[in-house]
Amino acid sequence: MLVVMKKNALPEEIEAVVSAVEQKGFMARPIPGGERVAVCILHNSGAVDASLFLQLPAVKEVIPVTRPFKLVSRESRANDTVVEVGGVPIGNGHLTIMAGPCAIESEEGALEIARIVKERGAQIFRGGAYKPRTSPYAFQGLGEQGLKILARVHSETGMPVVTEAIDHEVFDLVEQYADIVQIGARNMQNFSLLRRAGKSNRAVLLKRGMAATIDEWLMAAEYIMEGGNNRVILCERGVRTFAHHSRNTLDLSAVSVVKQESHLPVIVDPSHAAGFRDQVVPLARAAVAVGCHGLIVEVHNHPERALSDGAQSLYPDQFSDLCRQAEAVSELLHPLREKAAA
Amino acid sequence: MLVVMKKNALPEEIEAVVSAVEQKGFMARPIPGGERVAVCILHNSGAVDASLFLQLPAVKEVIPVTRPFKLVSRESRANDTVVEVGGVPIGNGHLTIMAGPCAIESEEGALEIARIVKERGAQIFRGGAYKPRTSPYAFQGLGEQGLKILARVHSETGMPVVTEAIDHEVFDLVEQYADIVQIGARNMQNFSLLRRAGKSNRAVLLKRGMAATIDEWLMAAEYIMEGGNNRVILCERGVRTFAHHSRNTLDLSAVSVVKQESHLPVIVDPSHAAGFRDQVVPLARAAVAVGCHGLIVEVHNHPERALSDGAQSLYPDQFSDLCRQAEAVSELLHPLREKAAA
Amino acid sequence: MLVVMKKNALPEEIEAVVSAVEQKGFMARPIPGGERVAVCILHNSGAVDASLFLQLPAVKEVIPVTRPFKLVSRESRANDTVVEVGGVPIGNGHLTIMAGPCAIESEEGALEIARIVKERGAQIFRGGAYKPRTSPYAFQGLGEQGLKILARVHSETGMPVVTEAIDHEVFDLVEQYADIVQIGARNMQNFSLLRRAGKSNRAVLLKRGMAATIDEWLMAAEYIMEGGNNRVILCERGVRTFAHHSRNTLDLSAVSVVKQESHLPVIVDPSHAAGFRDQVVPLARAAVAVGCHGLIVEVHNHPERALSDGAQSLYPDQFSDLCRQAEAVSELLHPLREKAAA
Amino acid sequence: MLVVMKKNALPEEIEAVVSAVEQKGFMARPIPGGERVAVCILHNSGAVDASLFLQLPAVKEVIPVTRPFKLVSRESRANDTVVEVGGVPIGNGHLTIMAGPCAIESEEGALEIARIVKERGAQIFRGGAYKPRTSPYAFQGLGEQGLKILARVHSETGMPVVTEAIDHEVFDLVEQYADIVQIGARNMQNFSLLRRAGKSNRAVLLKRGMAATIDEWLMAAEYIMEGGNNRVILCERGVRTFAHHSRNTLDLSAVSVVKQESHLPVIVDPSHAAGFRDQVVPLARAAVAVGCHGLIVEVHNHPERALSDGAQSLYPDQFSDLCRQAEAVSELLHPLREKAAA
Repeated sequence: MLVVMKKNALPEEIEAVVSAVEQKGFMARPIPGGERVAVCILHNSGAVDASLFLQLPAVKEVIPVTRPFKLVSRESRANDTVVEVGGVPIGNGHLTIMAGPCAIESEEGALEIARIVKERGAQIFRGGAYKPRTSPYAFQGLGEQGLKILARVHSETGMPVVTEAIDHEVFDLVEQYADIVQIGARNMQNFSLLRRAGKSNRAVLLKRGMAATIDEWLMAAEYIMEGGNNRVILCERGVRTFAHHSRNTLDLSAVSVVKQESHLPVIVDPSHAAGFRDQVVPLARAAVAVGCHGLIVEVHNHPERALSDGAQSLYPDQFSDLCRQAEAVSELLHPLREKAAA
Repeated sequence: MLVVMKKNALPEEIEAVVSAVEQKGFMARPIPGGERVAVCILHNSGAVDASLFLQLPAVKEVIPVTRPFKLVSRESRANDTVVEVGGVPIGNGHLTIMAGPCAIESEEGALEIARIVKERGAQIFRGGAYKPRTSPYAFQGLGEQGLKILARVHSETGMPVVTEAIDHEVFDLVEQYADIVQIGARNMQNFSLLRRAGKSNRAVLLKRGMAATIDEWLMAAEYIMEGGNNRVILCERGVRTFAHHSRNTLDLSAVSVVKQESHLPVIVDPSHAAGFRDQVVPLARAAVAVGCHGLIVEVHNHPERALSDGAQSLYPDQFSDLCRQAEAVSELLHPLREKAAA
Repeated sequence: MLVVMKKNALPEEIEAVVSAVEQKGFMARPIPGGERVAVCILHNSGAVDASLFLQLPAVKEVIPVTRPFKLVSRESRANDTVVEVGGVPIGNGHLTIMAGPCAIESEEGALEIARIVKERGAQIFRGGAYKPRTSPYAFQGLGEQGLKILARVHSETGMPVVTEAIDHEVFDLVEQYADIVQIGARNMQNFSLLRRAGKSNRAVLLKRGMAATIDEWLMAAEYIMEGGNNRVILCERGVRTFAHHSRNTLDLSAVSVVKQESHLPVIVDPSHAAGFRDQVVPLARAAVAVGCHGLIVEVHNHPERALSDGAQSLYPDQFSDLCRQAEAVSELLHPLREKAAA
Repeated sequence: MLVVMKKNALPEEIEAVVSAVEQKGFMARPIPGGERVAVCILHNSGAVDASLFLQLPAVKEVIPVTRPFKLVSRESRANDTVVEVGGVPIGNGHLTIMAGPCAIESEEGALEIARIVKERGAQIFRGGAYKPRTSPYAFQGLGEQGLKILARVHSETGMPVVTEAIDHEVFDLVEQYADIVQIGARNMQNFSLLRRAGKSNRAVLLKRGMAATIDEWLMAAEYIMEGGNNRVILCERGVRTFAHHSRNTLDLSAVSVVKQESHLPVIVDPSHAAGFRDQVVPLARAAVAVGCHGLIVEVHNHPERALSDGAQSLYPDQFSDLCRQAEAVSELLHPLREKAAA
C-alpha cells in the first residue's frame, strides 16, 4: 500500500504517517516523488485498510497494491481448475453447453425441451424452479415440484442439471436435486448464501452481479472457496450500463481478465446479456471466440408461450445453429490453446 | 402496451398481432403512425408480458405503458406516509437524523457515540451488528452481542435504533432488538428477505441497490408492502457509475422522482455515497435541500481507529455542523412546504 | 408518438392533448388502456418533439415510436453498403483489417511497420498525424509531416491509409492525403466536423462516442450522409462504464444491432476498447465472431518505445496471430453468411 | 509512479524495470511489499507514461501518483479565482444566476424573457444562437442573427450574455457578441476549440462532458489556461448513467471535489441534468447547498411553444421561486463560508 502525501506536507506530517504504519506492525518507507512524497507500507501479510491512513493530516490518497483475493487467484494455483459434474468436465479446453427453459413450467414441457437440447448439443440442462422476479405479482416458479421435474429430467436423459437457489432455505432443497447450484446475479453479494454454498458438496455456478467489478466477483467466489467448496464456476452475464439496445452490456474482456487472475472456469450467459433472441447467437459465438469455457443459454420449444423470458429464449433450430457455430469456433481455438499450453 | 410494427409490415402480420392480443383476452386497436403501424393493447388489468408479442413476425418493439407497482404508488395513496418509530416521525415535513458508527465495536464505544450524536442532533441511532463485507477475511460485526449493545443504547438514551439484517436467519434476531430493520443495497433484490420483512411488525429501511432503477427499487418496496408491512422507509445511497472521485454517485433527482411516484418517506445516506469524510457535509446539505425526509450518517468518536468505514465517518464536531446546517436548510423549506401543501 | 395520461386525468385534460396534437397538424386518437388513457399521434411525417406535450396538465409521459434516422437506416436501403477504398472493399462479407501505429513517429518507423502489417495480413494502414490528447503537454502528433509520411506509405506499399482529422481545418489537409478520414470518439458529436465530412469525397470512419447510444451514433452518421457522402464506415471502440479492468467496455451487441438497424459497414477497434495488449487478440476474435466487417488495430515494431498507446499496441508476432485467427473465424462464418443470404 | 511486479517476479525482471526507469532519467527504488515488490519512480518532473513500463516482463500494473494538471490545480493557486464579467463576479462566495431560453427564437421573445429573468433575479442572460443537435433535421439556431439579438439584449438590459460556440469558425463570431463563450458538453474534448478558447479574451464556460472524469474535465480547462486565458468557469450538468428517470445524473460531489482540486469557479446546470421541469428547482436548491458558485437555468415565457428543450424550461413563476430559494440557501451558507475562511 502506498500513502500519498499532499504537495506541501510537512516533515512532521510525513513522520506521523510513518508512526501510524509502524503502530500497526508494518514497516514504512517514505519515497520522495516528482512533486510529493509517498509512504510505502512493507511487510504487511495481506490487505491493509486504507481508511486508517486517509484521515491523517496532509494525506492525499491511499493506493492499494496487493489484490484482496487468495484462494481464487491464479497466483495461488497456476493450473486451470476443471469442475467435473456427472461426468461432464467444465474448464480448461472444454466447451460445455448448458441449455433449457428460463423456468420449469411442466414435467412434459421440461422433458421435451431437455430431449431437444440434448440431441442438438447441450451437455447440461438448465431450468428455474425458484425465480427471482422484480415484481411480487410475477410467476415465481414451481418450487420443489420444479426440482422434482429436474431430477426426472436427469434420470431420463442422463444430463446433469443446474438450477438457482434464491435463499438459504431453498439452498437446502436445491442441493438435494441439482448437480450445480446457481447463485444469481442479484445474490452475488448475498454473503450468507455464499457461505452456505461454501459448505455444499455441489458445484456452484456464480453469476456476476450486474454492477460488480471483477474484484468483487472474485471475492464472492473467495467466500465459497473459503468455506471449503472448490467447485466454483464463474458466469459472465452482462453488466448494467447507459446502453439500452440490449438488456445488459456483455463484458467479454472480463473473461480474459478472469482467466488471467483466477484458475476457476468461466462461462458466459448470452441470453440474459442480450435480452433479445436475435442477439443471442452472435454473442454466443463471440463468447466462445474470446475463450470462455462454456455457455448457458435459454431455449424453449414454444418461446411465445413461455411464462418468463420468452423474448430471449431461442427456438430449437436456433439452438442447433448456436451449438454448431460455437463448436466450430471452439475447434478453431484448440490448436491455439495447445500452442499456448506448449 | 404498444406493439410497434416494422415499416413494411403486411396487413396479415398486423392481423396476427391483433389475434394474439385478443387470445390473451385483451382488446387490440391498430394505429397507423407516420411511418409505421402500432397496435395498442386495451383493457388489460395490469402489466402485460412484452415478450408475448416481440416474437411475432414484423414486430419491431413493444413499449410498456403502465407502471408495474401498485401499493407503493402515489396513485394508490395521495397523502405522504409518515412512519413513526418510538415516537419519532419519519416523512412528510419532518427531518429525521439517524447517526452512529458503521459497526458496533464495543458497548462502551457505542454508548459514548450515542450520547454524542443525541446531544448534537440525532433522533435515531444507527450501528451495524452484522456487516456485509466484500471480503470473507474482513471484520463481520459482533453479531447478537452487537444487537444487545444496541438494545442497551436504546434503553440508556431513549433513541430508537436501526441496524441491518443481512439474511433471513439474522432477521429473526434483529427484529427482536431493533426498531428499524435495514435491508442493505446488496440485498435490495434479495426477494426472500423482502418477503420476510413484509411479515415483520418493525419498520424497514430499504436502501437502493447500487445499480437499481427507481422502478426496481419501488418494486422491492412493493414486495414488503404486499406482505402486509406498510412501514417502509426508502434510502438513496448513491449509484455506481464510471465516476470514481466519490465511492458512488449520489442521485438526488431520485428523491424528487420517488416523492412524485410514491407516498413513502425517502431519506439519504451521504456517507456511503461519498466514501470520503470531506464530501459528507456538503452532500447532506444538498440532500436536505432537494427535499428528502431524513439523513443517515456515519459518526465515530475516533474515526482513525474505526474497524470499518473510518474514512467516511464524521468526527463529532463535523456532525454538529451537519445537524446545524441540515436543520437550517430544512427550516428554510418549511414555508415552501406549507405553500405547496396549501 | 404516444402521450400517456395520468391515472386520474379528466376528460377535458385528455381533450386538451388532442387539441394540442391537432394544432400541430397531426391526428390524435385517445386509447383507453388498462389503468390510464394514452393519446396516439398519427400522420406525423417524422419525429415529433416530445416536449410539446409533456408540459400539458395530467400528462405522465411521452413515448416516441418512430426512430429518428432516415438515410442510414436499413429501412431506407435493404442491401448492405460496401465502401470501396483504393480497391479494398469494406462491408458485406469482407473482413478488412486496418493496422499500424497509434501515431506516426518517423518515416522510417512508419514504413517499417507498414511493411510488417501488410505482410502479415493488413489491407489498410492506420497511423495518427494529429492526436487528440487529454493533456496539452502530451505528444500531439507530427501534423502535416505525418500526413506526408502516410502518403509515402501508400505509394510505397499500395495500402490505402486511414488517419484522424481532429477539426475542420485539419480536415482540409487530411482529405488531401488520406483515403479514409477518421472522426474520433471525442468528436462523434462535433456536428460541424460531421457536416464537413458530409461534403468530402473521401470515405469516413466514424467512431462511436464513449457514452453514445446507438441512436446518437447513427444520427451522427446521418449528418454525414445528409451532406451527400454515402461512404461512411462505423467503428465500435468500447464504451465507458463502471468497469475498469479494461480501458473501455467493448459493446459487441452494438455490432448486431447496427447491422439490423443500418446498411452501413461496422468495424471494431479492440485496441482502444482493451487498453491492454493481452486483451486485444481475444477481443478481436470475438468481434469477428459477432459479425463485424473489419478490425482496426494498433501495432508497433517496438511498443515499449512508442510515443503513445504503447501498452495496447501489439508486437508484430501478436498481429500475425490476430490476422490468422480473425481470418479463420471469418472463414467459418462464410457458409453461415451465405445461408443467411439464401 | 509505482510499478507493481507480479508475485513471483525474478530479481533480473525487477532489475530490468529499474534500468528502464533510469534510462528515462529518473531514479528507481524497489520496495518489497507484503506479497510482491513495487518499484517507485522518483525525481520525475511531471507525469510519466505508464505504458513504458507496463510491457516489461513480470510487471503487473503501473499506478500513477502525481495528478496531471498544473495551472488549474489548487496546488498552483491557493485562493479561489473570481471571474468578473461585465461587473458581475463569478466565484468565491458569490451566487451568480444565469438564465434564459434554450435557443434564441426571435428578438421580441428574447427581450421579453430577458426582462423577466432580470427582474426575478438573474444577473446574466443565456440563450443559444448555434445549437448542437443530435439530428441534422432539428432546429439548429438562428446563427449570427441570434448573436445580434443577444447583443441587443445586453445593451437593453445591461445583462452580460453567455452563448455557445460550437466550432472554431463560430467562435470567432461568438467572441464578438458574447461576454462569456460556452463550450458545450459534447465539445469538452474538442481540443482545437479549447486551444481557440485559450487565445480568447472572453470568459469561457466549460461544461463537463457527459462521461468525463473530473481529471479529464480539469485537463480540458488546462488546455484553455495553457493558452493564456485564465477566465474559465466550470459547469457540472449531469453525467450519463444507467438511470433514466432524469436526462442525466447530476453529480454534486463533483462540485466538492473540483473546489478542492482547483481554484476555478464551478457552477451547475440543473436544467440539462434534469431534462424535466419538475426536477429543476429541487436540484437547483441542492446545487447551491452543496456549495456551487452559480446556476445556469433554462427559462421560457411559453415553454410549450419553445423550439427546443421546452420540457425542461421553467415558467417565469417557477424561476422566481428558484431565485428566492437559491438565494435563501446561499445566505445560509454565508456564515459557514466566513467561518471556513476564518
